[in-house]
Amino acid sequence: MPKILISRHVGDHAMSILSSSGFDLIVNSEDAAPSREWVLKHLADPEMAAMCLMHGQPSDIVDEELLNACGPNVKCLSTFSVGFDHINVKAANERGIKIGHTPGVLDDAVADVTVMLVLMTMRRVENGISLVKAGEWAQIPWAPFVNCGPSISHPSLTISFIGFGRISQATLSRLLAFTSTSHPPRILYTSSRARPDQVSIDQAFSEKFGVEIKRVEREQVAKQGDIVIVLASQNPQTVDFVNKEFLTWMKKTAILVNCARGPLVNSEDLAWALENDEIYGAGLDVVTGEPNVSADHPLVKSRKCVVLPHIGSGDYDTRNKMAELCVRNAINGAKGEALLAEVKV
Amino acid sequence: MPKILISRHVGDHAMSILSSSGFDLIVNSEDAAPSREWVLKHLADPEMAAMCLMHGQPSDIVDEELLNACGPNVKCLSTFSVGFDHINVKAANERGIKIGHTPGVLDDAVADVTVMLVLMTMRRVENGISLVKAGEWAQIPWAPFVNCGPSISHPSLTISFIGFGRISQATLSRLLAFTSTSHPPRILYTSSRARPDQVSIDQAFSEKFGVEIKRVEREQVAKQGDIVIVLASQNPQTVDFVNKEFLTWMKKTAILVNCARGPLVNSEDLAWALENDEIYGAGLDVVTGEPNVSADHPLVKSRKCVVLPHIGSGDYDTRNKMAELCVRNAINGAKGEALLAEVKV
Repeated sequence: MPKILISRHVGDHAMSILSSSGFDLIVNSEDAAPSREWVLKHLADPEMAAMCLMHGQPSDIVDEELLNACGPNVKCLSTFSVGFDHINVKAANERGIKIGHTPGVLDDAVADVTVMLVLMTMRRVENGISLVKAGEWAQIPWAPFVNCGPSISHPSLTISFIGFGRISQATLSRLLAFTSTSHPPRILYTSSRARPDQVSIDQAFSEKFGVEIKRVEREQVAKQGDIVIVLASQNPQTVDFVNKEFLTWMKKTAILVNCARGPLVNSEDLAWALENDEIYGAGLDVVTGEPNVSADHPLVKSRKCVVLPHIGSGDYDTRNKMAELCVRNAINGAKGEALLAEVKV
Repeated sequence: MPKILISRHVGDHAMSILSSSGFDLIVNSEDAAPSREWVLKHLADPEMAAMCLMHGQPSDIVDEELLNACGPNVKCLSTFSVGFDHINVKAANERGIKIGHTPGVLDDAVADVTVMLVLMTMRRVENGISLVKAGEWAQIPWAPFVNCGPSISHPSLTISFIGFGRISQATLSRLLAFTSTSHPPRILYTSSRARPDQVSIDQAFSEKFGVEIKRVEREQVAKQGDIVIVLASQNPQTVDFVNKEFLTWMKKTAILVNCARGPLVNSEDLAWALENDEIYGAGLDVVTGEPNVSADHPLVKSRKCVVLPHIGSGDYDTRNKMAELCVRNAINGAKGEALLAEVKV
């Protein structure tokens, strides 16, 4: 009887789909990551056909070691995430193992948190919360411009996106409910490379959203954006995309939000930029090295920066949809059928 | 030469309007509230014609004492706020003194913060930030349902408003960019009393926003709302509107957001409800007794409640618009002309 390995309970909704799939299930019974040994041992089982795995769980990193451990019938490794920076996709594919992931279903949830972080950063919420928690509110009572920040409905704002995929577009559609209608924002974005038909692509975007949208190079998204939003995938070209040079290009009144992956923004450079008033503030749902982020991390300590523990896709409906897609990928892969969402590189 | 008293610098934009108004200006030179004596002394000046004053500044509370101190030519007291719970309007009007305030110009800014608090509360951001700041992220790493909250795009959500004036409507127009389009939310609101033409009023609202909108009584906004938003003015009928009874009626999965005035929500009852899981969480921009809120206030300490230091209208553009309206009210009042925005009770 072929088996599916589940490295962590994925919720009642998705577990019930697995239970009726006809496969034997090997489920990590702890509400914690299993040991690497446990994973490798079960993957070596000649009857193992697929695995559901987690991003950010050390046991589940798909490297040469894990791939070498796979038994002859492992056909699919399905990650409970969109990102696949923890997976050596090329090496897996070379062994005939498909990689599944969960795009699409979390776009709305991540866009919600991105807009929330834009508002929180513009309104200096990190500072506001810290002030209240320190019992300092009475020392800084209401005054005409106390605790103020830039206005999201400021006329002719420029919003810059690093990456303009589905999540960026979902974010934009929400942001347009906040920005000025009489003086709408201008949207700039950058992507890995300009397309031959870039002008018509941008024209289609502009028509879809009813505002001017244009692809530009890295320097211009930095220099012109009042709000700079990082929503690109992590790869060697995007690591450290926002570094000291980029931050120095940014307006001193501009804010930065990262809801993609930590390494796209260099933490040391960002801490330096905040400390030196090179930018107004930052909102991060992700940070390099997470979850190993200590209380004395300079970005955690800064009152100009809010750091959230990677909650972008964290609403119950979304996580259940991700879980369902993750297990359906694994089931399809185990059967030798096409995945619902396969990573190919 | 008639004079205008300015109890606090209202920013360069509005000060320049005052400077060219033709009135002599008496301006508090400190970036802090003046003493009560300073205010009363200048109000007694026979040439004093109007005053620009602040909400939440103890020196500026418009009670019998302040009104009795006014010289014979004081015609207008103009507050830099929408709310006028610090002003005895009736007593002022009986003396022929008009009360100016600043409605309209801050609707968008307060709506921005209201939506932000809805998102923050649903996504348990208070808990997330506290966890990161305590260095606990590594102990609670990513897992399928860790740090999750209810989804704002959940099908057929009910959103309840206490008060459905301009700010509530601006909030709703933003929230609809986040909610499900295939299963849109139902909107309930309550107001001081049903109108004779309530059905046609609600029909007009429903058509304007493209979702079902209906006025109901207090018990129903509490019982049916997944998101309950307080945006009513403070008066004897609204103080303690959200009390233990109301909170017990609410769903255990529902959230409460207050961006109006602190006393509309009873703090002790809310702390009790959060402690006993009567509701999912709360987001407050205002709290009774502010700014005298200590670090050990139960709502400040709760990880289910975020408390912001009354930043609702706190973006620079909005505060400059409020300042302009405040000084124009004072100038018009001092001239004996109609105010741009007068409070009447």
